[in-house]
Amino acid sequence: MQNHSNSEGKFRVYLDHNATTPHSSRLKSRWMELMDISGNPSSIHQDSRVSKTILRETRKKIADFLGCSPLEIIFNSGASEGNNSVLKSVYSLLRETRNEFLISHVEHPSVLKTAEALRSWGAVVHLIPVDRNGSLDLDFLKSKLSSKTALVSVMYANNETGSVFPIQEVTQLAHAAGALMHSDCVQMLGKSSVDFKLLDVDYATFSAHKFYSLKGTGFVYVKKSSPWQPLIHGGGQERSRRGGTENVTGIAALNIVLDELKSYEAKISEVQRMRDQMEAELLQRIPNISVTAVQGQRLANTSSLVITGVDGETLLMSLDLKGFSVSTGAACSSGNPEPSPVLLAMGLSRQEAQNSLRISLGWENNEGEVKSFINCLVETVEKLRAIEAEEGKKDYAG
Amino acid sequence: MQNHSNSEGKFRVYLDHNATTPHSSRLKSRWMELMDISGNPSSIHQDSRVSKTILRETRKKIADFLGCSPLEIIFNSGASEGNNSVLKSVYSLLRETRNEFLISHVEHPSVLKTAEALRSWGAVVHLIPVDRNGSLDLDFLKSKLSSKTALVSVMYANNETGSVFPIQEVTQLAHAAGALMHSDCVQMLGKSSVDFKLLDVDYATFSAHKFYSLKGTGFVYVKKSSPWQPLIHGGGQERSRRGGTENVTGIAALNIVLDELKSYEAKISEVQRMRDQMEAELLQRIPNISVTAVQGQRLANTSSLVITGVDGETLLMSLDLKGFSVSTGAACSSGNPEPSPVLLAMGLSRQEAQNSLRISLGWENNEGEVKSFINCLVETVEKLRAIEAEEGKKDYAG
Ligand SMILES: Cc1ncc(COP(=O)(O)O)c(C=O)c1O
Ligand SMILES: Cc1ncc(COP(=O)(O)O)c(C=O)c1O
Repeated sequence: MQNHSNSEGKFRVYLDHNATTPHSSRLKSRWMELMDISGNPSSIHQDSRVSKTILRETRKKIADFLGCSPLEIIFNSGASEGNNSVLKSVYSLLRETRNEFLISHVEHPSVLKTAEALRSWGAVVHLIPVDRNGSLDLDFLKSKLSSKTALVSVMYANNETGSVFPIQEVTQLAHAAGALMHSDCVQMLGKSSVDFKLLDVDYATFSAHKFYSLKGTGFVYVKKSSPWQPLIHGGGQERSRRGGTENVTGIAALNIVLDELKSYEAKISEVQRMRDQMEAELLQRIPNISVTAVQGQRLANTSSLVITGVDGETLLMSLDLKGFSVSTGAACSSGNPEPSPVLLAMGLSRQEAQNSLRISLGWENNEGEVKSFINCLVETVEKLRAIEAEEGKKDYAG
Repeated sequence: MQNHSNSEGKFRVYLDHNATTPHSSRLKSRWMELMDISGNPSSIHQDSRVSKTILRETRKKIADFLGCSPLEIIFNSGASEGNNSVLKSVYSLLRETRNEFLISHVEHPSVLKTAEALRSWGAVVHLIPVDRNGSLDLDFLKSKLSSKTALVSVMYANNETGSVFPIQEVTQLAHAAGALMHSDCVQMLGKSSVDFKLLDVDYATFSAHKFYSLKGTGFVYVKKSSPWQPLIHGGGQERSRRGGTENVTGIAALNIVLDELKSYEAKISEVQRMRDQMEAELLQRIPNISVTAVQGQRLANTSSLVITGVDGETLLMSLDLKGFSVSTGAACSSGNPEPSPVLLAMGLSRQEAQNSLRISLGWENNEGEVKSFINCLVETVEKLRAIEAEEGKKDYAG
């Protein structure tokens, strides 16, 4: 996955960074360093030394970055595992006294599907509404919070629309009711410069492949003395909080990428400028187009568009043929013909959801790429609408 | 982790292949190929194509190797996750009608600790005894199997002693009682040339870092139409049987290593000859030494020794200083001062378990390395026994 040209030398521009990111250039320049790191970090002999050091160093770097203790970081296989671990832990340990969960309606499937499982096991799950502007219904939250609430789970930012939620406020409300607070922070690192500690959450989940490192590596922040039960029982790894030999290659890669993260954050305003310019130009050049959740606080890199009368999937495939990678919703439900549940939950109609396209910029994108994308999108939309019109259907282009 | 010399140029011989293996030379020679594989296999655009192909190809290679359908393979983060998934799935789905589990007493902690969790949730767990020879008590198994048995879980081979269990026979007994059968096959691939399909198990778990590939990558074999519930709920990955973006780097590495696996199997007899020669020579040169479970069927590469009067941990560290990596038990419980639960379960005394040492050979070991290890071990044991004797304690050396 590369920009300008792919491994086969074809022109490509990658604009799908909320689905996953290419490996950072720093990681690639140090790729060979990963090759010989194969000791088992749990062994005692010297052949385990390098792996042990990498685990310790990386844990420390994450802790420094987040402003927490290294003991509060548990390595795992990614944020889906992390989200399952948090929800199932809390349910399993607190269900006798508190068995209600308050979950935003636009969470990732790894939260929503887990909540469904908890419900089938006896939990009460309330979905907190989110409106078209991406605003979380805090009144609903307040009305449902009680001494029965075990956990509130609201993501830091939505992967499809980029909407950023008021985690600090939600955490205060949750804590006031004696409930625990979890935030899926997958779309935070590298895309936002928020001070994590101010959020004051009890649990946060992260995934390395969303910020230029490897897939299959993630970590959970678990605030000291918060309830925790392993999702994966086993050996004494991660202080018996997560069984299984750690993904040492993935953690070594993370160790390299973490050093770049601060400089990525410095580029956030640049990315935001490109995104805002792109949206302004598209609004000007394409009739009947709108940006979803544009009124609220959003991630700097994400743009979720509704282009009336143009099928998102068809548009995606036309753009793909011309070298641009974008998406219609979350990657993990790609290929699913159903419109995005996130957009539906926000109150968009099925038609609007079906006419949606997500562009998510990354640090390696430049103005030239964005310009050529804009031109291609304008042209493709015109063409698709013309075809629709010719087929005797309603002409949305005017 | 390298033999002969490590990255700092020091003499090292790695003899701990049951804990983990170094990356294969083929994998290392193709290391750079992994660098640019970063597409999300669940995306639709062309930047996902390479990742998608790798998943499909690797799944097919595993299926061909095991003699099953690619649909029966689910990728995950390793065998600890796999073992948890199998046991928790079966408990969760069958507990109303069958809530008893029969588990060998010498399983890996990821099975035993999970069984303890199931017990705390209401399951009945019977531990099948294993004797000093590594023989599983089939009469016990028969006596406990009933229409209440949900699952029998017996590993293919034990990681500490190398004992190979009669899975085919156990499966037949389990199936005759209408129970499901799981086998932890972590120590099978690359160490045995058994025909997997003959075992006829319903579930089998594997881990890539035990056969010269990366940590954090594994897969489960789930026989068609066997009960299955995701341990990790989430997106539609792995046909909704395991949420989370797949570890594409780890799977791409596995794809490379799988091509070597057949040729590893061809070397099994060579490894066995080295191991047998080593044991013969040690029995001759070291007084009061015994090989655990030597009477039963064993893996070709594993040697579990009891050296009377010599503390295993002290011996391990002395050997380590001289450049040899071995272990006293499972890596995941290393650093734990308790003697190996596996050896205790087999009926060894605490003293015997504390006097134990495990040597596990790999395909890159050669006769010269084994010879120098033998000499070093003989010398070190003599020295440690002399110190013990001098300290006025009983002299075991004579
Ligand atoms: C028999 C056995 N089962 C399971 C495991 C766990 O595998 P993983 O390290 O992939 O979690 C191991 C190794 O640690 C093992 O030896
Ligand atoms: C908001 C959010 N949460 C969780 C995940 C799941 O992360 P992973 O792919 O590491 O399982 C993703 C990405 O797929 C995501 O965007």
